[in-house]
This record gives sequence, C-alpha cells and structure tokens, in this order.
Amino acid sequence: MAGASVELVSSVKCFNGFQKVYKHVSKELNCSMNFSLYEPVKANPEEKFPVLFYLSGLTCTEQNFIQKSGFQRFASEKKLIVVGPDTSPRGCNLPGDSERWDFGVSAGCYLDALMEPWSKNYRMYSYVTKELTQLIKDNFPNTGKFGIFGHSMGGHGAMVIGLRNPDLFLSLSAFAPICNPTQTEWGKDVAFKNYLGEENRAKWNIYDSTEVIKSYDGPERNILVDQGDDDEFLNTILLPQNLKAAADSNPKVKVNLRMHPGFNHSYFFISTFMADHIEHHAKILNA
Amino acid sequence: MAGASVELVSSVKCFNGFQKVYKHVSKELNCSMNFSLYEPVKANPEEKFPVLFYLSGLTCTEQNFIQKSGFQRFASEKKLIVVGPDTSPRGCNLPGDSERWDFGVSAGCYLDALMEPWSKNYRMYSYVTKELTQLIKDNFPNTGKFGIFGHSMGGHGAMVIGLRNPDLFLSLSAFAPICNPTQTEWGKDVAFKNYLGEENRAKWNIYDSTEVIKSYDGPERNILVDQGDDDEFLNTILLPQNLKAAADSNPKVKVNLRMHPGFNHSYFFISTFMADHIEHHAKILNA
Repeated sequence: MAGASVELVSSVKCFNGFQKVYKHVSKELNCSMNFSLYEPVKANPEEKFPVLFYLSGLTCTEQNFIQKSGFQRFASEKKLIVVGPDTSPRGCNLPGDSERWDFGVSAGCYLDALMEPWSKNYRMYSYVTKELTQLIKDNFPNTGKFGIFGHSMGGHGAMVIGLRNPDLFLSLSAFAPICNPTQTEWGKDVAFKNYLGEENRAKWNIYDSTEVIKSYDGPERNILVDQGDDDEFLNTILLPQNLKAAADSNPKVKVNLRMHPGFNHSYFFISTFMADHIEHHAKILNA
Repeated sequence: MAGASVELVSSVKCFNGFQKVYKHVSKELNCSMNFSLYEPVKANPEEKFPVLFYLSGLTCTEQNFIQKSGFQRFASEKKLIVVGPDTSPRGCNLPGDSERWDFGVSAGCYLDALMEPWSKNYRMYSYVTKELTQLIKDNFPNTGKFGIFGHSMGGHGAMVIGLRNPDLFLSLSAFAPICNPTQTEWGKDVAFKNYLGEENRAKWNIYDSTEVIKSYDGPERNILVDQGDDDEFLNTILLPQNLKAAADSNPKVKVNLRMHPGFNHSYFFISTFMADHIEHHAKILNA
C-alpha cells in the first residue's frame, strides 16, 4: 500500500466495530496529528465502506466527538467508516496561539492561513481536503464515497469544504454551524483578521459558507442543518438564517434548516439528532 | 413539599427531556454533593415516571455517565427518571483520601465505613439507600417504582444495594461489576481493610454481592450482567464467574451473565449495551 503511514494509538470495541485513534506526521501542518477512525466489522475481508468525515468545534480535540456524540451506534448499523480530525495543528508553540479559546490551538478554522506566523502550520483546509483524505484512501480500503459533517466551527468547515469540493464529498450536513463568519465579530476581528489578514479581504468569502452558496454552481446539494433555539451563540456567531436565505436564492442548494426548541450548543444537542445525520449521509453514500 | 431541599446546578435539553445536575447538603456524608437527574418531558403536569439509579465506577463524578453512556435516548423513550449520584463524599480533606485512584475520593465503594477517619463521611450505602432515595421522593414526583444499575465499583454498589433492598429496588442490572471484593487484593488490602477494618472481618460479607446472593432469601430476582472478555480487570477485580456460581446455587436469584468478545471496561462498552439495560429496567418498572 502506497502513501504516508499512520500509527495506531488505541483501538476499543464499540457496537459492531472499533473506535480507533491514529497519529501521523502532517506535511500540510508541519506537526504530528491525531485523528479518530471508527471502523465497522467487515462481513468478509473484501468488504468496503464509505467514509464520513466529522469536523469538531472550538476547544475540541479528536476525543470529544468519539466520547460524547454516540455516533458509533448508527455508524455501526449503517456500516460507515467515520473519521474525526483534530481542530488545529498541535505543538507548534507559535506566539499567541494559546491566549484565546477561539483562536490558535484548537481553533484552526478549517482554512489555509495567509498571514505570518500562522501560514506555515494553520492549513486545516488543505489538511482535510487533500492530505487526510489521501491518507484514508491509502491506508483504509473504502468505496471511495465520502461525506462530511461537523459542529459549530466544524459545521462551518464541513459546509465550506463540502460545498467547494462536491465531487469529493457527496453528502453534507451540520450541527449549529458558524454560517456567515465574515459578518460576525469573531470572524472580522479575530479569526479571519488574524489568519487571512485585512489586506486579503477579497479572499475571505471562500471560507464563508453563506458566500460560497451565493456563487455555488455545482451539482445539486441537499444539506441537513440542525440548530437549537436556546443556543448561546445563535445570534452572535452562528447566523443560520443568513445561510438559509442564501440557499433559498440558489436553486442548486437546498438547506433543510431545522430549528429545535430548547436545545443549546452542547453535545447533549448533537447526540439527540445524531441518528438523523447518519441516516442523511448513509442514504447518499450507501446508494 | 416536605424534606431536604435541592439546588439546580444546570439543566440541558437532551432528547425529549432535560439532563439536570443538582446539589444538596448530605447529612449522611457531612458534605455538599452533586447528583445528576434526567427528567423526561411530561405529557401532562400530573404524569409520573419510575426512577432508575445509576452508580458510577472508580474515578468518576456524576458527569462521566451523563456525558458518555448515551442513556438519555432510551430513558427518554421509556420515560424513566434516571438519577446518578457522585462516587464518594467530596471536599472532606481526610488524611490519605487522595493518594490512590482506587481508595478515598471518587472511590467510596457504596458502603458505610466503620474505621476512623472514614466513618463520619464515607457512608455511601446509607446515602444511596436512605438519604438520596428520600430526597428524590420528596422533590421529584414519581411512581414510587425504583430500579438500580451501575458500572464496575458502581456495579458492585448496585448489586449489593439492590439485593439487600428488594422492596425498594425492583429491578437490577450491572456493567462489569466488582462481584466478589472479599476475594480480591483491592478488597482485602485496600478498600474493605481500610473502610471496614480487619477486626470487623465478619461484617465484610454484607458488602460483597457474591456473598449476599449465597444467603439471599427475598423475592425472586432477575439480574442482567454484561461483561467484556477483553476487560483489563476481569480476573483480578471483577470475578463475575463467582457471582454466577453463587446465583446458580440459589433458585431465588437468576443472573443473566452475558460475556461479550472483544469489549473492554470503558464507556465504549457501556454505551454498546445501554439500550438492553434500560429495556430490562423499563419492563419491570413500567409494568
């Protein structure tokens, strides 16, 4: 088997499969990275499964999702490999990378940074779309059908990456995604300002899923988005109504935005609707 | 409403219910304690539900179970209140209470200690069977039907408490319980020795579920026990075969011991079989 190698860190049986964690040296990020991988048991050695990528939110590692979301029950039933990368480069010790919970370490924003000192390591967009997908192709036999979903910052990542790479990611959904970061204080004053720079303002829109939808002209997409209406970030950072409005103006993008009374931003919300998301992806990936 | 009061710490919607955490001042333990409580949404204000108690294992607080087990999906479906106490007194700062992961803080062993300096605070048996159950009766309307289950040290607690209080706890199950602590190094040299004392050796058996089963003469019990065969504690601390042998010799106790190939001691194992346990309890408590 060709390609870069991965090292198994842990493997634990969970439902009819194994929850594994691997590490590898990333060339895009210039550091060692962990990722989680759930692998259903094969009925025979030749059996292959689709691959669903999950992108986590601010402050997370690869652990939160595998410990708290309960996805394994449904990935096991639907026979999907599920891969969960970390949320930023690790161990780079760049100046200022650990001063804020919403910037730097564990806040890589799934973009390719243009500004110093971030541009050598903070390349999570290329990491997910090129390096990690290739690593999975090289090391884990699969059907070649990929999907992507995520939560919050990871919902933003999944939407941007999924919409900009429709041939690579056939299915797409998000939990409480950051939908329109160029219109929020976090985007304008923190993440995009520092990673991308004011002087590159023209390039911000390629990392804003509301803007990406406005100009989207690929194959028709059906996107499931779940959002709690008691989410503490709803009207300051997430802005799902902007995403929905953009989709309503583009016949190529259908966003099924489901507002859920009383739910907040936590994994208690995610776990409640996980079955529906796995079902959404399995329908497309197992078709 | 009479009785001691509880203070709400947090409440988060999860499935069709709310995952809450409360705190209260415990008279049995002489300290402030947290407990978790999952409360299904009521169809009408008068609707009442049974109560299922979950006892956690060594090193846990009330948080591990509510974040990692995925029980809320099934408690919501079956309409059960689920209560999860902490695993020991907190904040007492007794000499030596934080030197070992398997003794003292987060290792209360669900017994009433007889030895100094533990006997004033380490009264988890009375806390669960008397104070906490009364607190639930006083503060949360319910059908009066209680069940109990737990994991590891909490599986030991559930078995001992459930078998010794058959009129209070109608249903009983355990994940990877510590079954015969008087025959293990942890029991003989650490927990029972220090909490109960060598001079009280005759009283150890009331906190050993294998011994309790041998002399059990109450109403017939059907107990579900799940155990992974790749569990790192299987043959040193857990000893489920001793429990099964005792049950096989007592027609009043039926233990359905299910050995699961490849599973270890973690919440990945617990989450895999959670649906079966909630079903086991719901059948009895909702009858």
